Amino acid sequence: MDLRKYNSAKERRGALEKTLSLRLNHIGKFSLDESIASKRNCENMIGAAQVPIGIAGPLRIKNYESRIKDYYIPLATTEGALVASVNRGCKAITESGGANSISHRVGMTRGPVFYTGSIQKSNQLYKWLKENKKKIAEESEKTSKHLKFEKLDIRTQGFYVYVRFYFNTEDAMGMNMVTIATQALGELIEKETGARMISVAGNFDIDKKPAWINFINNRGFKVWAEAIIKKEVLKDVLKTDAEKFFDVWLAKCMIGSAMSGSLGFNAQYANIVAAMFIATGQDPAHVVEGSMGITTARVLKNGDLLVSVYMPALNLGTVGGGTGLATQLEALQILGVAGSGNVEKFAEIVGAVVLAGEISLLSSLSEGSLAKAHQKLARSK
Amino acid sequence: MDLRKYNSAKERRGALEKTLSLRLNHIGKFSLDESIASKRNCENMIGAAQVPIGIAGPLRIKNYESRIKDYYIPLATTEGALVASVNRGCKAITESGGANSISHRVGMTRGPVFYTGSIQKSNQLYKWLKENKKKIAEESEKTSKHLKFEKLDIRTQGFYVYVRFYFNTEDAMGMNMVTIATQALGELIEKETGARMISVAGNFDIDKKPAWINFINNRGFKVWAEAIIKKEVLKDVLKTDAEKFFDVWLAKCMIGSAMSGSLGFNAQYANIVAAMFIATGQDPAHVVEGSMGITTARVLKNGDLLVSVYMPALNLGTVGGGTGLATQLEALQILGVAGSGNVEKFAEIVGAVVLAGEISLLSSLSEGSLAKAHQKLARSK
Amino acid sequence: MDLRKYNSAKERRGALEKTLSLRLNHIGKFSLDESIASKRNCENMIGAAQVPIGIAGPLRIKNYESRIKDYYIPLATTEGALVASVNRGCKAITESGGANSISHRVGMTRGPVFYTGSIQKSNQLYKWLKENKKKIAEESEKTSKHLKFEKLDIRTQGFYVYVRFYFNTEDAMGMNMVTIATQALGELIEKETGARMISVAGNFDIDKKPAWINFINNRGFKVWAEAIIKKEVLKDVLKTDAEKFFDVWLAKCMIGSAMSGSLGFNAQYANIVAAMFIATGQDPAHVVEGSMGITTARVLKNGDLLVSVYMPALNLGTVGGGTGLATQLEALQILGVAGSGNVEKFAEIVGAVVLAGEISLLSSLSEGSLAKAHQKLARSK
Amino acid sequence: MDLRKYNSAKERRGALEKTLSLRLNHIGKFSLDESIASKRNCENMIGAAQVPIGIAGPLRIKNYESRIKDYYIPLATTEGALVASVNRGCKAITESGGANSISHRVGMTRGPVFYTGSIQKSNQLYKWLKENKKKIAEESEKTSKHLKFEKLDIRTQGFYVYVRFYFNTEDAMGMNMVTIATQALGELIEKETGARMISVAGNFDIDKKPAWINFINNRGFKVWAEAIIKKEVLKDVLKTDAEKFFDVWLAKCMIGSAMSGSLGFNAQYANIVAAMFIATGQDPAHVVEGSMGITTARVLKNGDLLVSVYMPALNLGTVGGGTGLATQLEALQILGVAGSGNVEKFAEIVGAVVLAGEISLLSSLSEGSLAKAHQKLARSK
Repeated sequence: MDLRKYNSAKERRGALEKTLSLRLNHIGKFSLDESIASKRNCENMIGAAQVPIGIAGPLRIKNYESRIKDYYIPLATTEGALVASVNRGCKAITESGGANSISHRVGMTRGPVFYTGSIQKSNQLYKWLKENKKKIAEESEKTSKHLKFEKLDIRTQGFYVYVRFYFNTEDAMGMNMVTIATQALGELIEKETGARMISVAGNFDIDKKPAWINFINNRGFKVWAEAIIKKEVLKDVLKTDAEKFFDVWLAKCMIGSAMSGSLGFNAQYANIVAAMFIATGQDPAHVVEGSMGITTARVLKNGDLLVSVYMPALNLGTVGGGTGLATQLEALQILGVAGSGNVEKFAEIVGAVVLAGEISLLSSLSEGSLAKAHQKLARSK
Repeated sequence: MDLRKYNSAKERRGALEKTLSLRLNHIGKFSLDESIASKRNCENMIGAAQVPIGIAGPLRIKNYESRIKDYYIPLATTEGALVASVNRGCKAITESGGANSISHRVGMTRGPVFYTGSIQKSNQLYKWLKENKKKIAEESEKTSKHLKFEKLDIRTQGFYVYVRFYFNTEDAMGMNMVTIATQALGELIEKETGARMISVAGNFDIDKKPAWINFINNRGFKVWAEAIIKKEVLKDVLKTDAEKFFDVWLAKCMIGSAMSGSLGFNAQYANIVAAMFIATGQDPAHVVEGSMGITTARVLKNGDLLVSVYMPALNLGTVGGGTGLATQLEALQILGVAGSGNVEKFAEIVGAVVLAGEISLLSSLSEGSLAKAHQKLARSK
Repeated sequence: MDLRKYNSAKERRGALEKTLSLRLNHIGKFSLDESIASKRNCENMIGAAQVPIGIAGPLRIKNYESRIKDYYIPLATTEGALVASVNRGCKAITESGGANSISHRVGMTRGPVFYTGSIQKSNQLYKWLKENKKKIAEESEKTSKHLKFEKLDIRTQGFYVYVRFYFNTEDAMGMNMVTIATQALGELIEKETGARMISVAGNFDIDKKPAWINFINNRGFKVWAEAIIKKEVLKDVLKTDAEKFFDVWLAKCMIGSAMSGSLGFNAQYANIVAAMFIATGQDPAHVVEGSMGITTARVLKNGDLLVSVYMPALNLGTVGGGTGLATQLEALQILGVAGSGNVEKFAEIVGAVVLAGEISLLSSLSEGSLAKAHQKLARSK
Repeated sequence: MDLRKYNSAKERRGALEKTLSLRLNHIGKFSLDESIASKRNCENMIGAAQVPIGIAGPLRIKNYESRIKDYYIPLATTEGALVASVNRGCKAITESGGANSISHRVGMTRGPVFYTGSIQKSNQLYKWLKENKKKIAEESEKTSKHLKFEKLDIRTQGFYVYVRFYFNTEDAMGMNMVTIATQALGELIEKETGARMISVAGNFDIDKKPAWINFINNRGFKVWAEAIIKKEVLKDVLKTDAEKFFDVWLAKCMIGSAMSGSLGFNAQYANIVAAMFIATGQDPAHVVEGSMGITTARVLKNGDLLVSVYMPALNLGTVGGGTGLATQLEALQILGVAGSGNVEKFAEIVGAVVLAGEISLLSSLSEGSLAKAHQKLARSK
């Protein structure tokens, strides 16, 4: 079967069904616009995967500008108990008065690697880069009106020089944009310095691999969210108390993660990030960066509990990528963040939902009900 | 809006549309069986996300038992160029005679944390665990006929004891199963030793967070795949040569990843894992573990290129989770791995597709065409 | 100046003084036995560095077999305030009734890397290693009567196979012994399997570099020590209280280390390990492994404080290396651990002194006196 | 025995000898100035450890300003074969025309942690710090005329704010100086912002623990050194060739270190750093930072070999600490770097010696002689 021979999802699906002697009835049932998706999102398209979307909420969030709003959260998942768990966290937060959430844009990065031939020449390239930031800004910003150069980090290793460019890409996640901009910069640098760009992406970006540089120096957006869960909410909604919660948090998220050599000092950021990313058309491989971060807990004198999450590298957008596809756009609309001007708010919402997930799961672990929840679920199968 | 009041996706969707004054036409269009999905996969269901599926292939794979077969690979993605890139890698591999792939089951892990009160008592618990493996096997295997105890790792830290249980969960990814089994073990241990289980999951498992323990001691399946790409295929299909490929690999995947503090010494494992996981109903948060691993390259004397991938912790299944949903099941059927008895083969296929992704992307970087590909794509938008 | 021409420290020193036009009066003043040291410990010897030794103590330690004893601790250091700080920690521990300390031998490791050529052949070598443990034990144990094979870990990566052999080397740190044994094993494996040993030491050991494998899977000895510091001792000796100590510990040793991407969740293990290692003739580059580990703190109901240290990879010996040199031997004698049969006890003492260092420094930080101590010291300069 | 009762090393030694019934003849033999050492370097002094010093060299180094000079290297060690190994590396470098070495000062860091109470307040402190760099410079520089504020990094985590101050401390390693300066800054910040400094050192510095932040963002000095080893030198002096060397380097320093989760992509930096640090009066616990770094190798077309080392965080000084002690000062004089104005040069020398160590050990591994060298040594015992 030569895939190049076919011109539509239907044709390809038909050929595949014939070749493999099977039926693809459901993959063929989709309402998204094939003509657009097959150009922008997915080559050799045969149809679509249907991933169930559940709703959690309302989740009350007070963002950095002190706007308070209640949100309903679309979560695309096939893992039973996740929506229920997040929903419980949302309830606990909302009944306690809501979560605060702040996001800071750090910028999307691309990190090329140059070969210079010697440590002296690497040192010269280092100096050139330090002294030509204006030129770098101009050259890169020529490639898109939606891109702004922010800063760069340089690390030289022998005959290699690694550069990490940070760009503001407005409301787009921006990976493609920064690749194009960096290609232009690479050509400029090659021309002006004689160094050779070995790769436009030298894993100093670093994209979709767990890495301390993204944790320590951040990438995309930094997001913080926190809530004070009231004593009575801990008891009534979460069936636990502040001390028990703290004990689990310390033994699991801090010491357990240290024992494991982890970059994730948390309970389940990845679950929430994955479910929101798939629902809203983000790049799901960025769950890798989104799984990093630190949750903290603090027992307050009155028995309330302060819980806080920190996501050092959340990569997302409200335009571009999969955000324009039919169901994904609707999911962004449910959150009220579709289109331009919304990416910071979207990051803040993700942070608050991640907080809800942490509160619910750590509570569940603290009173021993996680297995019971899964057991009940397992029996239903 | 109180979500508990509604009994169907349609009702919830209607309420949401009314509350938020918007239309959810596309989320409401799905063909999967709501009655099953809403019980097993997704609470508070309102519909489904449609994620485009493209096909790459054929990809010729020779697995551990030397069976040779050509595969067509379903990839659910919204990121343009990914399917095309994997497809090119498949072509390069297949025209070079195919990839070899091997998988070893390590076992799904759950890692509870116990509080003992002192280093002496921790030491006693350590001894109890060492001496009672048979009892541990029996107790845990009572919880499911599909679960078999494999081994355990114990690390004590002061007044805490962390245990990492490994279980064979047959063709299921098995996270729920091992949670239930570990809960039973925790109760046994509490009863017999007086230690207190603080959490059934103490981040010594460690689930869905980047962590060296999963890299070093493995989790789920270890997978290796490799292919010798012929000199002429490098030139004709991949537009590069072995030396250039090697240079990019070394500067990016090895030294670049070292400079970044990464656990991913590779180009793009996460992209492929995410696309295959969403298509086939895996837990997409396990992309975190799937993003780890090492790619290696070696220039052969005749100008051919040996490329090899190693995935230390691939968590997947062919039954359970989202694998039974309509479109996901069809995707597994395309691969010929739906249902029981197929999980090792499925792991081997994922390894080979990841290899295809590495070969294609590193080739593209080595001849400077990545930005051009994205530029072309960007222009089409 | 050709160093090979000279036959004694005096001759070399003389030549160096003449070549460089300077005087080496103090380096030439030493009482150690040059004839032995120049053969076993230091080629091209010109004399000795004098590193001041201070004494801390008494430190009361209850070891695993419940023997209680008071120790005086020799610390070789040039960093003012270190001995005083450790001494204060010893006082706090001893006045609170002493520390408990336990050590477990894990074994000294050597980790060769083999080239096989393909993943299938790597898999075959994996199997050979799994099936020939008896032969491996016999072959390695032929190389020394003081060496016993314990276990091995195997990880294959494409055409490479990494093996990590663990040996019991009795009272010696054992690095040389395990190198010789591993060389013999490498030759056996090459002969029997056709694999080629690229390097007898493939950084899978891994020696004297910070690495998670040594943290997670341990190396040399695991050591734990803990003490309950009484409320009044916290106040009178340490000028702090349990709550303040806990706050500093949590913010610094846990969250601060997480923010830094560290393998050291502690305050100052390295300072103590370095000072004891230099005093007692250990390999000071093993401070790298000794700097890893986790300190924990817990406020008890009565206001007492439980502090605990865990060192996952302490490499040391009471025979061999520098332990037989004159001053180093005396330092071991001060501790009562010179010669054979003492290495576990020595490890336990190091653990307890490290605990004293943690207690003192974290107390000092918690009441804001660290800078003051250094300021006083600085003024004296 | 109450250590406070005694006023001299002799008295303390006498008391110890009596209490423990042993003789400390050698520890009592030292020529350093007790009156100074006991005040500045070592409390409760009883004498000195004698660590053998061997000499390697000459080592030809061309530093950043293109001065060429031959150096003799003092190495304090008790590990047989180390001096001989470094010496061989020096010979290979010198016979090939010398090494290039460059150092960049990054600055000594101190990283306090503040408690703010909420993410909003953390955000306010972040802004205050960003806007008050001039005030921070002034306040910190008041504490010493040898200290200059360079820059700061801020990372907020929930209700904590971590700051990493970088200072130029001239020729001193500077740890004490920056602690005093940071204490002053902490008091300023507390007064002006209401935040509370939990600890002047919050492990965001991070001192003497392995940590990615020191690798990625550097600490103290960055140092690079490289040499082109001629084909004939590889053969005659090092008994290997460029290809074999490269194979070992790749399998061990890159892939082996990746497999181990290491921050040391090298062969033996720590050995050389430890031996030079002890000889010259550096803080030996800083071997932890000095063990990090990446070695690279490249086979040149003519069969020569380019080897390069990169040390991301070398902490050292030529004044202060132990540098003024009698033997340590002589060792610095041997290198020609005693006293002020020499610290960059000293860093460059350490880099070049580390390079010599890498070249020698990797050569030895590549031709299988490491075990033989140790075997010969072992037999002499």
